[in-house]
Amino acid sequence: MYRTHTCGELSINHNGQEVTLAGWVQTVRKFGSITFVDLRDRYGITQLLFGEELNTELDAQPLGREFVLQVTGKVNERSNKNPNLATGDIEIIVGSFKVLNKSAVPPFTIQDDTDGGDDLRMKYRYLDLRRNAVKRNIELRYAVNRAARNYLHQQGFMDIETPFLIKSTPEGARDFVVPSRMNAGQFYALPQSPQTFKQLLMVSGYDRYYQVVKCFRDEDLRADRQPEFTQIDCEMAFVEQEDILNMFEGLIKSIFKDVKGIEYTEKVQRMTWEDAMWKYGNDKPDIRFDMPLLNLKKPAVVYMNKQDQSQLINEAGFKVFDEAETVIAIAAPGCSEYSRKQTDELTEWVKRPQIGMKGLAFIKCNTDGTYKSSIDKFFTEEKLKAIADAAGAIAGDLVLILAGAEERTRKAISDLRMEMANRLGLRKKEEFRLLWVLDFPLFEYDEEGNRWVARHHPFTSPKPSDIETMIGNDPVITNAAEYLKHPYAGIKANAYDMVLNGNEIGGGSIRIFQRELQEKMFAALGMSKEEALHKFGFLLGAFEYGAPPHGGIAFGFDRLCAILGGSESIRDFIAFPKNNAGRDVMLDAPSTIDDKQLEELQIRLQLK
Amino acid sequence: MYRTHTCGELSINHNGQEVTLAGWVQTVRKFGSITFVDLRDRYGITQLLFGEELNTELDAQPLGREFVLQVTGKVNERSNKNPNLATGDIEIIVGSFKVLNKSAVPPFTIQDDTDGGDDLRMKYRYLDLRRNAVKRNIELRYAVNRAARNYLHQQGFMDIETPFLIKSTPEGARDFVVPSRMNAGQFYALPQSPQTFKQLLMVSGYDRYYQVVKCFRDEDLRADRQPEFTQIDCEMAFVEQEDILNMFEGLIKSIFKDVKGIEYTEKVQRMTWEDAMWKYGNDKPDIRFDMPLLNLKKPAVVYMNKQDQSQLINEAGFKVFDEAETVIAIAAPGCSEYSRKQTDELTEWVKRPQIGMKGLAFIKCNTDGTYKSSIDKFFTEEKLKAIADAAGAIAGDLVLILAGAEERTRKAISDLRMEMANRLGLRKKEEFRLLWVLDFPLFEYDEEGNRWVARHHPFTSPKPSDIETMIGNDPVITNAAEYLKHPYAGIKANAYDMVLNGNEIGGGSIRIFQRELQEKMFAALGMSKEEALHKFGFLLGAFEYGAPPHGGIAFGFDRLCAILGGSESIRDFIAFPKNNAGRDVMLDAPSTIDDKQLEELQIRLQLK
Repeated sequence: MYRTHTCGELSINHNGQEVTLAGWVQTVRKFGSITFVDLRDRYGITQLLFGEELNTELDAQPLGREFVLQVTGKVNERSNKNPNLATGDIEIIVGSFKVLNKSAVPPFTIQDDTDGGDDLRMKYRYLDLRRNAVKRNIELRYAVNRAARNYLHQQGFMDIETPFLIKSTPEGARDFVVPSRMNAGQFYALPQSPQTFKQLLMVSGYDRYYQVVKCFRDEDLRADRQPEFTQIDCEMAFVEQEDILNMFEGLIKSIFKDVKGIEYTEKVQRMTWEDAMWKYGNDKPDIRFDMPLLNLKKPAVVYMNKQDQSQLINEAGFKVFDEAETVIAIAAPGCSEYSRKQTDELTEWVKRPQIGMKGLAFIKCNTDGTYKSSIDKFFTEEKLKAIADAAGAIAGDLVLILAGAEERTRKAISDLRMEMANRLGLRKKEEFRLLWVLDFPLFEYDEEGNRWVARHHPFTSPKPSDIETMIGNDPVITNAAEYLKHPYAGIKANAYDMVLNGNEIGGGSIRIFQRELQEKMFAALGMSKEEALHKFGFLLGAFEYGAPPHGGIAFGFDRLCAILGGSESIRDFIAFPKNNAGRDVMLDAPSTIDDKQLEELQIRLQLK
Repeated sequence: MYRTHTCGELSINHNGQEVTLAGWVQTVRKFGSITFVDLRDRYGITQLLFGEELNTELDAQPLGREFVLQVTGKVNERSNKNPNLATGDIEIIVGSFKVLNKSAVPPFTIQDDTDGGDDLRMKYRYLDLRRNAVKRNIELRYAVNRAARNYLHQQGFMDIETPFLIKSTPEGARDFVVPSRMNAGQFYALPQSPQTFKQLLMVSGYDRYYQVVKCFRDEDLRADRQPEFTQIDCEMAFVEQEDILNMFEGLIKSIFKDVKGIEYTEKVQRMTWEDAMWKYGNDKPDIRFDMPLLNLKKPAVVYMNKQDQSQLINEAGFKVFDEAETVIAIAAPGCSEYSRKQTDELTEWVKRPQIGMKGLAFIKCNTDGTYKSSIDKFFTEEKLKAIADAAGAIAGDLVLILAGAEERTRKAISDLRMEMANRLGLRKKEEFRLLWVLDFPLFEYDEEGNRWVARHHPFTSPKPSDIETMIGNDPVITNAAEYLKHPYAGIKANAYDMVLNGNEIGGGSIRIFQRELQEKMFAALGMSKEEALHKFGFLLGAFEYGAPPHGGIAFGFDRLCAILGGSESIRDFIAFPKNNAGRDVMLDAPSTIDDKQLEELQIRLQLK
């Protein structure tokens, strides 16, 4: 061993002891004839003192930043203690030292506030990983991993490895494929998730399975997506939705406790998908703050069971509202005194292409009890007050109103709600609020193909009460314009998402475990019987031999870590991430391969 | 929840309690008007008793093997207890039942002694996994996984995930490659191991890393190889070989204890590679028994420091020995009374093509003190006695002698030693003997290319005392016939293998951490500077910025589990293994993919 102690463990209790440390030179400070060096390793920083008698040696072998150094010396109580450092009470009076390896000058400083840009840090990721800010993330990731495994183990779950070289069954996202040399002309696929395998394990009787497992999706990378990512993947047999919700809010609470020291004792709030969309315009609402939507107008066919407040805006003669499919308002607390400049700026904000609205109406609920609005040409003060009251606004608030096509407007008001919360500091970094969103629609309508696609995935069960609707109706959509009237449009899934601070951190469902229903599902998705058998024959077969009721969930491990670490970017929590073009710039991968390799695989390039 | 208890937990303490169970029908036995059903789940088997009053219902809904059943009833003390069953004291008097799912008749019986052949069981792996014999293996695998993680965590190791989509740097085995759609014409490779990443993590200061991680090798599959396999992969910084040996014999001992209840307290034995080859003819000797080799003759150039016993056979005029490069004997204990038929059979055994010897000489050390030999035409009884004594034979033993070319003969005597041990029952299933094999040669000679290849891998450091030899000499072999005289032939590696019962379960090395030495290594392997930079530029770069001394080890997790489970086959310990053609017969993968997929990847097939 090159050391007797780490750079993080020496204290006044070791005073006088002879120790050997090894680590990296963080800083070198020369004061006259003596030299101070901060020596760094994974565990901390210890101050070294090189006395006058070592000057000749230091001249012969000067120390630089990031040199790897081994020193032997005596622990000494500092006269000038540093209370900010765990080892700040002591220093090492160096007796002898050895440079284990030199270092060139790093391309950026190894500090929290580094001068390195993103590209440079990614290219030299092995240096970036030395920075405390990054190290904390990697350590947090391991702590989450460990906490999850401990909880799941205690609950009787078994880690069972599923294969990585599987069969390509493209549904939704694209598969990465792997040409097989031994089976020329054929390909393996990398798993998008271990979904079918964990279901087979339930059929096999391993009733509590988990894995912390890499998954792969060949998608065009939006910001903060990675082609390879990690899931905490779980499945249980002989359970209903309620059992899963309880088990896995237990998991997240256990992680909160072990990793963040947070006792999250209250029951996790639950909300149906429809309520979430109606109330927050979003299926993963951030409920650290409320700011609910006031639905002033909705299209006839959606949210059938919901009552809008259209009487508040009807017959005002305001064409924008009258012609809009949807009108929605929120009340921004304490913003009634926004200046013209500020409301103009908000208007510009909603008009950005990412939001895509044509304009923004507002009502200022002045503290003196009066109301002032951008639309007071059409609405009396009384009417403005009625709208503001319905939006839950009180004196001092600012009501913001968007109008337009249903989907776009709902998304826009949701984005505006988040934007206002950010401006108002309502999204507190160290506050964690969990939410279960339930009862998703089973299907989504695919306009291009005029057919149904699975909102979650093709293995999700409908609600028991909807099974008959699904079995008893033809999934074909004969009238595209009225797809919402098709019986399948109303089928709800036995599915659930876990939302943390406005981010979906996990999602799952009770699965179909009956062959007939699974076949109907494949048919609903436009798969022929032959295609279904070719792709999923093994699963349909397994359902013939005593498949138990089962369900599960998968958590996005990278995202969960990022949120717990107070970051929006998953990349910061991955040791060796890829950039937005799917490249590892450190390795310079992907790259060309030898002709010999292509030849052995019996493939050739055919570049466009 | 579909159950209040599992099928493994009810005992006499639950007598009288109303419970609900769910599981699979193992057997149905009808006795007159009552029916017994054994209900099985992951945790055990519980006997159900269906009384007369349920007969109508049972007739309407008959139960078959592997049906999924939910029953509610009362726990009842059995009159006829079954001491072989954990729940054998009780049965459930069924009040009501529900068939949750039916089952077709399984293609083989779900029992330890199944009637299903290998192919059938692999095709229906989800049913095979229900068998107790397979389930025990999967449970053992999880226990090993858990034990390894717990030990490594306690020792301060961190699980850090390394990427799966990396760069192809074919060295030794072939890479599996993954065409990149976003970077057309370029490919990722799947990692053969996280070797370079774990070294980078050491450079980054994460001084104790581990991972239980999938690795991939596109090799022609010999028996019991898998294209994807799992490693317990570890690396440490600021360590020397001694530290690694101690840390990781601790790991295996901890696994022994947690998984098998074995207290392996003695120090793990150590042996140099040269001693292992000399004494056992093998670099992974099974030392549960001794049966050492007597080297009667060796070629001049190999095992230079070893003294053979050629004086025992010289000048006997026996051409076979005189003309052989190598002559080696072992003493098989208690076999002196082998019949002619038995010695003939052994002779046939060594003449099989897998062994490839021309014949077998033997000396019977009779219990009456006389010696009888197949070669007594050439050797006096006195000489036979001298040979037998040197081989460590005592009265009652049988000395077996092979002669021929060095490599083949040494391998053959090693195989014969194992064969005799098997016949004599010396390889006891429940005895575990660990061994460190040390000081491997750094290079092997590649006849085809007349060049050096890395015996372990290109990142293994030579022994400190050999660094100068390596730096100071030209690796080029000018005289192929005398390659053994090249200075590189004698360079020893700072490498170590852990051997368990004759199987290599782990291997590792102290790594090169100096750029100059690493470049020399690449050059020695015939890599040009450009090639080395193209493939490993990131690692050479990392060595410029303060790389610490480091080393590590990787354990073959599948093999370790198999040996602990008393099996020779790793496939039995993998939930979803592939066959020898690299196929998953359950999934029917690999398989063809859509033209659209090929087109998007900009590749096409070019089948020979």
